[in-house]
Amino acid sequence: MIKYPKYLEDLIESFKCLPGVGRKTAERYAFSVLNDLSNIDVEEFINNLDNVKNNIHHCKNCGNLTTNDICDICQDEKRNHRQIMVVEQPKDVFIIENLNEYNGIYNVLNGSIKFAKGISIDDLNIEPLLEKAKANLIDEVILACNATLEGETTAKYIKELLSDYKDIKISRLAYGMPVGGDIEYVDELTLLRALEGRNKY
Amino acid sequence: MIKYPKYLEDLIESFKCLPGVGRKTAERYAFSVLNDLSNIDVEEFINNLDNVKNNIHHCKNCGNLTTNDICDICQDEKRNHRQIMVVEQPKDVFIIENLNEYNGIYNVLNGSIKFAKGISIDDLNIEPLLEKAKANLIDEVILACNATLEGETTAKYIKELLSDYKDIKISRLAYGMPVGGDIEYVDELTLLRALEGRNKY
Repeated sequence: MIKYPKYLEDLIESFKCLPGVGRKTAERYAFSVLNDLSNIDVEEFINNLDNVKNNIHHCKNCGNLTTNDICDICQDEKRNHRQIMVVEQPKDVFIIENLNEYNGIYNVLNGSIKFAKGISIDDLNIEPLLEKAKANLIDEVILACNATLEGETTAKYIKELLSDYKDIKISRLAYGMPVGGDIEYVDELTLLRALEGRNKY
Repeated sequence: MIKYPKYLEDLIESFKCLPGVGRKTAERYAFSVLNDLSNIDVEEFINNLDNVKNNIHHCKNCGNLTTNDICDICQDEKRNHRQIMVVEQPKDVFIIENLNEYNGIYNVLNGSIKFAKGISIDDLNIEPLLEKAKANLIDEVILACNATLEGETTAKYIKELLSDYKDIKISRLAYGMPVGGDIEYVDELTLLRALEGRNKY
């Protein structure tokens, strides 16, 4: 392995912290910072890193990303605060918001149960949801965890935790064929779920 | 396209300045900075960016990367300063140095002639070489440009520029079969060059 000047090596190491970035790619990025980016670009890069790390927090109410204590969605009084969608990641909130369809609020778990990695329900942001349930502040919980094994496990756990609150309607995003999907190319498990969840036509 | 909070969007834009990084990858990097990197990691990242941009310069003598005015290689009196290897990029210097074989100094062009992009010989770091030639400070110039069209063109130009100095021996890295290479898999042009450059055995 070729050793570059210390400063360059340090930057290569930093780039290697990013997901999927190995030595070669990190070298390419570091040389690009050196050769192609202007001083202004790099200054902005530095500011942006700093801002993301120091000025973005999790909303105290729902766990979503925000620059304030409480996020814009939780502060919005026009939304239905008795309908709560449970998602795994802040990213999911932006995806749902982009649909312009949902008018409730969120509970962002910031993770999912992963027994193999020792992540249990206690490591997720679930407390705000349970407190609201206890205080009788919820009509409906929509479980919008991923359609993965981890997501399923997490959804089941949350359903279990809420089972004492009989008044809360609990739903789950539907499984089924993707729109525009050809039966030939849909995997068997999805097809099975689509059959189980078939609707009156 | 989903819009994230401004700070996050800004960081995504910064990552998009890196070579080969599109929107999706930039998002992944930005979320990784937010979720996976510790505060110390990010602080180091910021310092490393700053150091590379502000403390690494081109050596005034040869164009190589250095944190001083003159690089370590040019300062080394044990090296043969009358033998100069011309390379395109600082990276090439590190690759050659890694061989532990070459004991001369370098002239780093910091680019190659690219007519299509309007990069001519005047945009390259060639002046120090010509000055040394004029001052009769050179015995040998080794042209170690890349084996590409641009590298070839650049090498030809430099040979031309040095043609008045009859005492300077000019050489070029050999073309030929890669060591361990199978004739079946070597491209025709390389094979032709290997034939032209055949050695007494």
